[in-house]
Amino acid sequence: MENGAKKWGFQAKKGQNPTAAAAAISVRGVLNRLAENLNKEDKRQVIPLAHGDPSVFPCFRTTPVADEAIVDAVRSAKYNHYAPTVGLLPARRAVADYLNRDLPYKLSADDVFLTLGCVQAIEIVIAALARPSANILLPRPCFPHYDARSAYSCLEVRYFDLLPEKGWEADLEAVEALADENTVAMVIINPGNPTGSVYSYQHLEKVAETARKLGIMVISDEVYDHLTFGSAPFVPMGVFASTVPVLTLGSISKRWIVPGWRMGWLVTNDPNGILQDSGVVDSIKNCLNISSDPPTFIQAALPQLIENTKGDFFSKIINILREAAAICYGKIQDIPCITCPSKPEGSMFVMVKLNLSLLEGIEDDLDFCLKLAKEESVMVLPGITVGMKNWLRITFAIEPSALEVGLERLKVFNERHAKKQ
Amino acid sequence: MENGAKKWGFQAKKGQNPTAAAAAISVRGVLNRLAENLNKEDKRQVIPLAHGDPSVFPCFRTTPVADEAIVDAVRSAKYNHYAPTVGLLPARRAVADYLNRDLPYKLSADDVFLTLGCVQAIEIVIAALARPSANILLPRPCFPHYDARSAYSCLEVRYFDLLPEKGWEADLEAVEALADENTVAMVIINPGNPTGSVYSYQHLEKVAETARKLGIMVISDEVYDHLTFGSAPFVPMGVFASTVPVLTLGSISKRWIVPGWRMGWLVTNDPNGILQDSGVVDSIKNCLNISSDPPTFIQAALPQLIENTKGDFFSKIINILREAAAICYGKIQDIPCITCPSKPEGSMFVMVKLNLSLLEGIEDDLDFCLKLAKEESVMVLPGITVGMKNWLRITFAIEPSALEVGLERLKVFNERHAKKQ
Ligand SMILES: Cc1ncc(COP(=O)(O)O)c(C=O)c1O
Ligand SMILES: Cc1ncc(COP(=O)(O)O)c(C=O)c1O
Repeated sequence: MENGAKKWGFQAKKGQNPTAAAAAISVRGVLNRLAENLNKEDKRQVIPLAHGDPSVFPCFRTTPVADEAIVDAVRSAKYNHYAPTVGLLPARRAVADYLNRDLPYKLSADDVFLTLGCVQAIEIVIAALARPSANILLPRPCFPHYDARSAYSCLEVRYFDLLPEKGWEADLEAVEALADENTVAMVIINPGNPTGSVYSYQHLEKVAETARKLGIMVISDEVYDHLTFGSAPFVPMGVFASTVPVLTLGSISKRWIVPGWRMGWLVTNDPNGILQDSGVVDSIKNCLNISSDPPTFIQAALPQLIENTKGDFFSKIINILREAAAICYGKIQDIPCITCPSKPEGSMFVMVKLNLSLLEGIEDDLDFCLKLAKEESVMVLPGITVGMKNWLRITFAIEPSALEVGLERLKVFNERHAKKQ
Repeated sequence: MENGAKKWGFQAKKGQNPTAAAAAISVRGVLNRLAENLNKEDKRQVIPLAHGDPSVFPCFRTTPVADEAIVDAVRSAKYNHYAPTVGLLPARRAVADYLNRDLPYKLSADDVFLTLGCVQAIEIVIAALARPSANILLPRPCFPHYDARSAYSCLEVRYFDLLPEKGWEADLEAVEALADENTVAMVIINPGNPTGSVYSYQHLEKVAETARKLGIMVISDEVYDHLTFGSAPFVPMGVFASTVPVLTLGSISKRWIVPGWRMGWLVTNDPNGILQDSGVVDSIKNCLNISSDPPTFIQAALPQLIENTKGDFFSKIINILREAAAICYGKIQDIPCITCPSKPEGSMFVMVKLNLSLLEGIEDDLDFCLKLAKEESVMVLPGITVGMKNWLRITFAIEPSALEVGLERLKVFNERHAKKQ
């Protein structure tokens, strides 16, 4: 080497850093690839149907109540300090009160740990549960951050299927077959990403009973809480916490349409003190002790934000989502190469199955999405990212007129690539 | 088990979760213990000399420029969306420009990755460099987040001493003796936590030459950048980046006195493209892809915050710190059981050596701090937390009159526990 320097000791060695594997399956990794594939010559609006962030569309603007809660907290100058590990007490209490509206018993502030969005809640839970030879049961399809963080923390993953023909309910027989004495938890996402499903009370009850029988906890990702617009109402998993311990993960990202604010929570629904006694709560605190916190003033804004947001803000958002989901479901019927087994009833997404035999020159879902981005400036997530090869995940949570444009282009793309009869 | 539930699979197993070991050595873990030891009957003000967060004292109030930058960003409603993995471009550019003021060459926005405070920059760097059998060289004493995150990422740690009698310079002979072909980096913290030292140009140059010889990068934690009030000016390690690749870690926490805002950065000083070619930059991006980001509107506030802050805000803060450091150093001379080998010239801390032979009934530094908290409502960090048994780390970055009160109580405590001659 020039100037006598040795070979650099930090040279990356292929396959040796666990984060590379973890990142390869991240939504962001794939989104970045799609974005690179966009055709800069195409002057049409890029239609973002690949990720769940409608905040850039004026009709999805958050309530001024939320903005003012932040402004008040910053201007007070009382929240420039480091926050306590677990979060500011009034903010924890506000989250407990918020969740208590839908629970048969009372969470206390001590059950609530504030996190940097639901993403960090996932990080903390996985890290807290990881230990050599432990495994976790994830749904397929899944929000891939669970897979990525499990890979990162060297926690073994086993997949149970969600059943499209049964409204994406969990295959609980598969869950029973997969679990062993090293299984620590099963994950459900309700309302579902990427599925758009909303689980019934009865299904959640069965999930609880199955988990109890197996001696595992339920991690319930409710980041899309209350974003439902079909016949099934939102039921929090915590309702069944006397059957089985539940960790509820959530945030203000989706319901308040402020994903960039990074304010979430991790909540122990543990009326029997099982998570406490088994050391899980200590493990969570240990992880939080060595992690960054949500900015203190955003925590401080939480009580005002939660208490002052009016119901009509929420219903306005739900109405737009309902309309968008209907447009989406309707337009999909007109596009031969994709089929939708289950009408979305919640969250911001729908899964559709790709029929490659109707298309020419398209290799798989990723190829489909890369070509779609290039030819039509429409971004859609390949199913492979969420564990379902040759499916697509489509976001309908964008401005309805833009959604129509996007699906129209999808149809044109289909026609252009249709196999000649 | 009652109701037929099996033994719970998530029962924590002692020593099996890497986060427990990591958290045991966290500042927060120890601070929480000290806080629990405070005597609630003692009605005097608690004097917080244990951690570096002066933001609660009115004289350390941040500039209104900073508050208004946040308010403007929130009210604009343009920054509610998820941020890109690496951060918002204008914010990255603002950080590059900020650092370029002190560098002989030009960083570009692409060299800057925005993080949740310097804490997350540390997290990302350690995770990006970890691989089986790799090791990292840390100073002793050190900011313990490096140890904690290395334990968490299973990266082996080797310690080189900082030399108190030489103004806490790094023992570079020890560095050479410790390094082998699996060493990836050495860490320096300048201005120093917990040491209060400020390294000279000459010492940093030797650090660079040593690292180059060993084929390792330098991770330079400059979270206390420009907080210097002695004879030595602040010199960024990046000045030597043409000798050796440097990762600079920093944040607005300390210089702007807003640690609760969680806004930091990780910067590659890599004019020869070595970090790029060796895969380190990709590894950093991979880690960022699966981590939470700084809130988008706080990123968006960064250009305005950096550009509009006036020099007189910074000099006011420096003047208070200079005064406080002088009070601290002076008062320490009056307390027989502690000695200070090196006058602080920067950051917010000073390390003092405990002479236990002058005291009765005090076992060690931790015992000293626990009893001091209980008897005098003064919080001081035991040296063990930063790797130096029977030393103490004292923060002088608090309101000067409160500092005097705290050190007076420390003196009284010393007298009460002094060994009878
Ligand atoms: C199922 C699921 N969980 C968690 C998250 C992360 O949410 P947050 O923005 O609160 O970090 C998302 C974001 O899309 C999600 O879809
Ligand atoms: C040396 C050092 N590095 C990093 C940090 C973390 O800084 P931040 O508040 O920006 O996360 C601190 C905080 O005290 C520190 O002392």
